[in-house]
Amino acid sequence: MGVTDSLLADSLGRIAEEIDGAFDALLPVPGDARARLVEAMRYAAIGGGKRLRPLLLTAVADMYGVQREAAIRAAVAIEAIHVYSLIHDDLPCMDDDAMRHGKPTLHLAFDEATAVLAGDSLHAFAFEVLADTATSPDPFTQIELVRTLGHASGAQGMAGGQMMDLVAETSEFDLQTVTRLQQLKTGALLGAAVEMGAILGRVQPEGRGHLRGYARDIGLAFQIADDLIDHEGDAAVAGKAVGKDADAGKETFVSLLGPDRAREQARMLVEQAVGHLAQHGREADLLRAVARYIIERDH
Amino acid sequence: MGVTDSLLADSLGRIAEEIDGAFDALLPVPGDARARLVEAMRYAAIGGGKRLRPLLLTAVADMYGVQREAAIRAAVAIEAIHVYSLIHDDLPCMDDDAMRHGKPTLHLAFDEATAVLAGDSLHAFAFEVLADTATSPDPFTQIELVRTLGHASGAQGMAGGQMMDLVAETSEFDLQTVTRLQQLKTGALLGAAVEMGAILGRVQPEGRGHLRGYARDIGLAFQIADDLIDHEGDAAVAGKAVGKDADAGKETFVSLLGPDRAREQARMLVEQAVGHLAQHGREADLLRAVARYIIERDH
Repeated sequence: MGVTDSLLADSLGRIAEEIDGAFDALLPVPGDARARLVEAMRYAAIGGGKRLRPLLLTAVADMYGVQREAAIRAAVAIEAIHVYSLIHDDLPCMDDDAMRHGKPTLHLAFDEATAVLAGDSLHAFAFEVLADTATSPDPFTQIELVRTLGHASGAQGMAGGQMMDLVAETSEFDLQTVTRLQQLKTGALLGAAVEMGAILGRVQPEGRGHLRGYARDIGLAFQIADDLIDHEGDAAVAGKAVGKDADAGKETFVSLLGPDRAREQARMLVEQAVGHLAQHGREADLLRAVARYIIERDH
Repeated sequence: MGVTDSLLADSLGRIAEEIDGAFDALLPVPGDARARLVEAMRYAAIGGGKRLRPLLLTAVADMYGVQREAAIRAAVAIEAIHVYSLIHDDLPCMDDDAMRHGKPTLHLAFDEATAVLAGDSLHAFAFEVLADTATSPDPFTQIELVRTLGHASGAQGMAGGQMMDLVAETSEFDLQTVTRLQQLKTGALLGAAVEMGAILGRVQPEGRGHLRGYARDIGLAFQIADDLIDHEGDAAVAGKAVGKDADAGKETFVSLLGPDRAREQARMLVEQAVGHLAQHGREADLLRAVARYIIERDH
């Protein structure tokens, strides 16, 4: 294993532990009828997922010397948004998925109503965590984090992309529209992770251009890789159902470009993403490793 | 009509217009596949409801000379949370309601998946609006508004109360537990409305005790009144189905106390709420009128 490989492996292990620990500490189970709700939130939030958004956020924050505790707080918030979106996306009326992170989806492990409420509660939890006074950056930074996460997750970001994804089942989307869809559905939150790390690092907006370029490129590469996993992957390895997009008649990067050109495109995007980091030295090695990991993963 | 009656009627009319206008301005329909999502958000958010939370928030803000525009912004945020909770609460897997504010519920007018996403989008929208730089109080005030709204709407507030409400269908709750349930499900957000008005007015936490007492009392009175409407009301006037709690076998204030004692209890709570305002003069007349309106309304 090369130096960057072990840097990546160590960082993935560390962030997984930190995020699990933070969710565990911040979501104590109450001793009344709400216990089931918090247990459902914990079921979905703890012990699953690659924690890619927290990894990106903390990697950028580390580059600018941000205190680890403040970065983890913000990372938990964005991961809570990601987890809530998966819960709602898995619902019978949405993607109707039975498996997530290798275990039954929340609405099967609990029930649909609890899944709706647990998603909503994790959504509110994200903003509550960002606004908490406990660890905290100054209010100027806090409110910029709230604004960034709110914008990236709502109708103009992630939720807007999910809506386009629903429409995609009954429409013929071209490459440009599929690109736009994915930039919103997955890219907006990945971009917010990078942006929030930069906000914590007090990088002024005009100094964030290269980081935004990096985030945009890895966001698209990530989605192409996801389409390839859906097209070719193994459900047991992926931890979720595969072959779904073709079954739903949805256009994807793979259906529009073919697997070979899609793979080539993802590789190009990753090189382009790394190119955006040229002004940085060794401190950006983790971001470079994350970019490469994004297209090499099998889940 | 007495002086306070016309004050109330004028204020209800004014806030309805302002909230509709703000939603209209803040939710422009985009020219792509997300149009359907924003149309769904607008369908649920514009032109319905009593706007009780915005009325409370602006009434308190007015007492402390808060600029109207800033108060309306915060009022739109809390109303967006209320509207999203109604959309999700009406879903087939939750209360399975067909009518809301006298028109078909969102999942019937559109579809279930769109209803889930429109609720989620209004949820994110609320925090985005609070964090906006356009109109704004200082970041200290903004972040306190975010913290208050996040806490009141999540697992420790409204969503927690909704979870208890689900459990209530299969459990025998006593008066104390029903009270706690309602304090969370409805009371938390009504309390947040009053609290947010006070935050905008820069009333320090130790100076908010009487306002919290007022909010707690009208919150319970509001729910008892709702139970009475559900017990005795007319669906056409209420704008939604009635008689549902009894059908679902849920204990309510009316089932536990009987209608006469429930009505008496609500009246007592309103007098107690008004009592909390004794230190205020005419500037609190609207809050007094709102307290009385809460048990006199028929929808």
